[in-house]
Amino acid sequence: MQRAAALVRRGCGPRTPSSWGRSQSSAAAEASAVLKVRPERSRRERILTLESMNPQVKAVEYAVRGPIVLKAGEIELELQRGIKKPFTEVIRANIGDAQAMGQQPITFLRQVMALCTYPNLLDSPSFPEDAKKRARRILQACGGNSLGSYSASQGVNCIREDVAAYITRRDGGVPADPDNIYLTTGASDGISTILKILVSGGGKSRTGVMIPIPQYPLYSAVISELDAIQVNYYLDEENCWALNVNELRRAVQEAKDHCDPKVLCIINPGNPTGQTMSGERPCPCLVELMGASLGRKKLTLHPVATANASLFTICCWCQVQSRKCIEDVIHFAWEEKLFLLADEVYQDNVYSPDCRFHSFKKVLYEMGPEYSSNVELASFHSTSKGYMGECGYRGGYMEVINLHPEIKGQLVKLLSVRLCPPVSGQAAMDIVVNPPVAGEESFEQFSREKESVLGNLAKKAKLTEDLFNQVPGIHCNPLQGAMYAFPRIFIPAKAVEAAQAHQMAPDMFYCMKLLEETGICVVPGSGFGQREGTYHFRMTILPPVEKLKTVLQKVKDFHINFLEKYA
Amino acid sequence: MQRAAALVRRGCGPRTPSSWGRSQSSAAAEASAVLKVRPERSRRERILTLESMNPQVKAVEYAVRGPIVLKAGEIELELQRGIKKPFTEVIRANIGDAQAMGQQPITFLRQVMALCTYPNLLDSPSFPEDAKKRARRILQACGGNSLGSYSASQGVNCIREDVAAYITRRDGGVPADPDNIYLTTGASDGISTILKILVSGGGKSRTGVMIPIPQYPLYSAVISELDAIQVNYYLDEENCWALNVNELRRAVQEAKDHCDPKVLCIINPGNPTGQTMSGERPCPCLVELMGASLGRKKLTLHPVATANASLFTICCWCQVQSRKCIEDVIHFAWEEKLFLLADEVYQDNVYSPDCRFHSFKKVLYEMGPEYSSNVELASFHSTSKGYMGECGYRGGYMEVINLHPEIKGQLVKLLSVRLCPPVSGQAAMDIVVNPPVAGEESFEQFSREKESVLGNLAKKAKLTEDLFNQVPGIHCNPLQGAMYAFPRIFIPAKAVEAAQAHQMAPDMFYCMKLLEETGICVVPGSGFGQREGTYHFRMTILPPVEKLKTVLQKVKDFHINFLEKYA
Repeated sequence: MQRAAALVRRGCGPRTPSSWGRSQSSAAAEASAVLKVRPERSRRERILTLESMNPQVKAVEYAVRGPIVLKAGEIELELQRGIKKPFTEVIRANIGDAQAMGQQPITFLRQVMALCTYPNLLDSPSFPEDAKKRARRILQACGGNSLGSYSASQGVNCIREDVAAYITRRDGGVPADPDNIYLTTGASDGISTILKILVSGGGKSRTGVMIPIPQYPLYSAVISELDAIQVNYYLDEENCWALNVNELRRAVQEAKDHCDPKVLCIINPGNPTGQTMSGERPCPCLVELMGASLGRKKLTLHPVATANASLFTICCWCQVQSRKCIEDVIHFAWEEKLFLLADEVYQDNVYSPDCRFHSFKKVLYEMGPEYSSNVELASFHSTSKGYMGECGYRGGYMEVINLHPEIKGQLVKLLSVRLCPPVSGQAAMDIVVNPPVAGEESFEQFSREKESVLGNLAKKAKLTEDLFNQVPGIHCNPLQGAMYAFPRIFIPAKAVEAAQAHQMAPDMFYCMKLLEETGICVVPGSGFGQREGTYHFRMTILPPVEKLKTVLQKVKDFHINFLEKYA
Repeated sequence: MQRAAALVRRGCGPRTPSSWGRSQSSAAAEASAVLKVRPERSRRERILTLESMNPQVKAVEYAVRGPIVLKAGEIELELQRGIKKPFTEVIRANIGDAQAMGQQPITFLRQVMALCTYPNLLDSPSFPEDAKKRARRILQACGGNSLGSYSASQGVNCIREDVAAYITRRDGGVPADPDNIYLTTGASDGISTILKILVSGGGKSRTGVMIPIPQYPLYSAVISELDAIQVNYYLDEENCWALNVNELRRAVQEAKDHCDPKVLCIINPGNPTGQTMSGERPCPCLVELMGASLGRKKLTLHPVATANASLFTICCWCQVQSRKCIEDVIHFAWEEKLFLLADEVYQDNVYSPDCRFHSFKKVLYEMGPEYSSNVELASFHSTSKGYMGECGYRGGYMEVINLHPEIKGQLVKLLSVRLCPPVSGQAAMDIVVNPPVAGEESFEQFSREKESVLGNLAKKAKLTEDLFNQVPGIHCNPLQGAMYAFPRIFIPAKAVEAAQAHQMAPDMFYCMKLLEETGICVVPGSGFGQREGTYHFRMTILPPVEKLKTVLQKVKDFHINFLEKYA
């Protein structure tokens, strides 16, 4: 105590380590935080170390912003410092960040947001009346008519009403209740909140959460954080990453030995895999075979699955699944008493002309009262994807079905601890679900912008699939939806050995080499999960068409080179 | 299986419960979610129930938006339906939500935000050049020059630089490193993130987290969620809610029997208690005694603490504590190997002319290298409080000191799972730390607006203290800082009995009666913690002066009535 007091007296001016005041690119800052350890001075042992920290947090992995992205940040720093590389820029194809790739915001959305932000603009003649109408409506529902007030924990009331109206329209009249809508800080927040409530038990009673493999790594990360049990079910790569209910059965049966499977997560359209569990149209192959034409320029004929194919059978290859597959999954959840989580953030990103998005909610209701009154479902949407691509606003919503009223109270309580989702993100969500309609002043420009984004994405989906499939040792399933290609790559045995020597997963080794040699940043399949012995990577299709072509060509050249080098 | 298939076939149109499509105020929606249970049809047992849910989440309590606020929502609904009450509106004095109470946003902040949101406005002559300059700088640091892109998980680089520069200025030159700044979704997000990393161990090794009583209930909620051990230390109500290091010692010693105390949380200025651990000025009482004048109109003389008071001693009553108190706390943390969390979101809300905010970071550095190289500290700030009061944007930052580099990597990884804080909130944080300076076009208007808000708050702090202290059975310590009064209320024995009959805490009973009779919504002290047998409530001082006077008068009348009724 006396010694300490002496130390207090001894202290005088502040110390100035050499690192202070330094400025770095933000990516580089992240990189340096992880990869560099500054020389230690004589120090006491720290309280918070890798050994003493929360082991569940330590176990978390998040590939989309993992080591490969930190490396990309390092390389960017080196380029800034003038270090010569075989490329001049890093292309961050690791994440679905549309506007960072040059996609322009939808004008109407930003007009409404600007009006809400600075209501003086409501008097400006340069803003259209329909945007002003939307802004006034949102502001009137905010405390003090301001985006700067907290909203109710569940979200601004009129925005929840707009979300419910949107869902009702989307689902062809199946009604949605604003009471069941919870606005969230992006979809990730909703998913982790509902999982947080769901996880319980210890030992063999610990909650098991079924997730697809490959998965979006938010799921595995939250499962680690919550110390829940991850129960993998594998998507069928040979069948365009289809979800097979028999595989769900296998997974749940095996899981019951060591945990209590309670939750089934579905990602539709798939991330990273792009498959879309939807469509009521007949299989295009069969239509072609039977002489009908869908008016497409080119139609690849696939092997038909069954001998007794009829017009309304779907061939395995196309996997334009009828609603039957969604029905099967819902029935499985009903049978096995599983809480359903439907991640539907890519619902507007369906490119295959043979696919159409069907929500789990809609199919559930159309299956009749035994299901619609009993199956517990939470589904998720976001401002970040679709054609608006407003990732930075962190807007999203969750719709819950058949949630016990007491649990709804618990949910509101839990959400209220963080007070509310960002109100600007809530306003952005409102525009996503409530865009201009025919007859409104902004409709034409809005439609033009929307079609341009979605048309380009569809074009890029096809381009990517086609180009990857021309490369020996790369196979890419059709990109029916979402924003990613997840091609399977052949990695030669010598490269696998080299990876092992570097203590890396073979596809991480591959992606690191790709990054170092071309500046292209993609995420190894091991970050999403894949069948043992198979290798993949995830790449966004978001770069502008010409840039995407260059990227694909570079990947092709790299891959051929890689195969030669490790032959 | 066959039965299920039959059920699928049987299903036809969607059902339409009477509740669908209904519209409610958002508060009422929250209320109904908790308080009403719709009649159950024949149902299967649900998967997610109060019994099966995560028990740690079930244990969470959050008084600021708890039962009293749900009741307020119900009453608002009743008023809307035309049900007669002894009042015409509910006054939500339960939460520090400045703009909901009519405070106008700072013009400059909203101008910059509007420019960032809709960059077409950068060509508009109606926006000042300094706002445009800020907006351009922020946009240039965003992917695709857009608020709609994800930022780095740690936050936009130039905003972290501005935060570091602000801290350096604030702390009189003690340098801050942008690498140590993490932008967050409000301060709550930062606090819960760092606690999540800190908590580990089982049984007697489970992490103990020391929090003040009374506390801001985010702390107890997060501690419940993480299944950590809450270690209470009591603030000294008799001494203006001072923090006494002997009490910290008592608390940590007792805690060691059943957990591993690893974290010490400090809220300064205090929430809900408003005390401010700061000030280097002499005690105003002593100055008065010694004939000096501070130029204040009225100066209440307090009993001087010690007989040998000198000009630079501080009397207990004023509790204008010298930096000595902060030093003592830091030394205690150093000695006991505690990780320090300094919640400093009210750093701009210091009203007593005798108080000045001192950050823990600054004092830590000035205590010399043994402390500045060893004590692990995370401190927090927010866009929600101060004079900007931008709660809805959910902006905040955390500064970490002496965090192990490996832990910084873990922190970035954990933050990256949620991708990034809302970029609009980050931009708002930038303006909070980087407002107009003398010589800039907007400086005059900004200064006027800032002084108006802070001047009013100071006036309301004094008004509230004075008025409460005129009421028999209410005692209110000086409101040195923050935005709340936390008066102690006398509750007669008969009222305590009545509360018990209603299975309510006595102060919850009191606050419910206050709400029902006057429409004023305040939060019972039991939601924040208080010494057994004492009762309090928390009320914001944010309503406009005239309205606040009415509110205080109504509380006074209610209280006198209450005392009579239960005499």
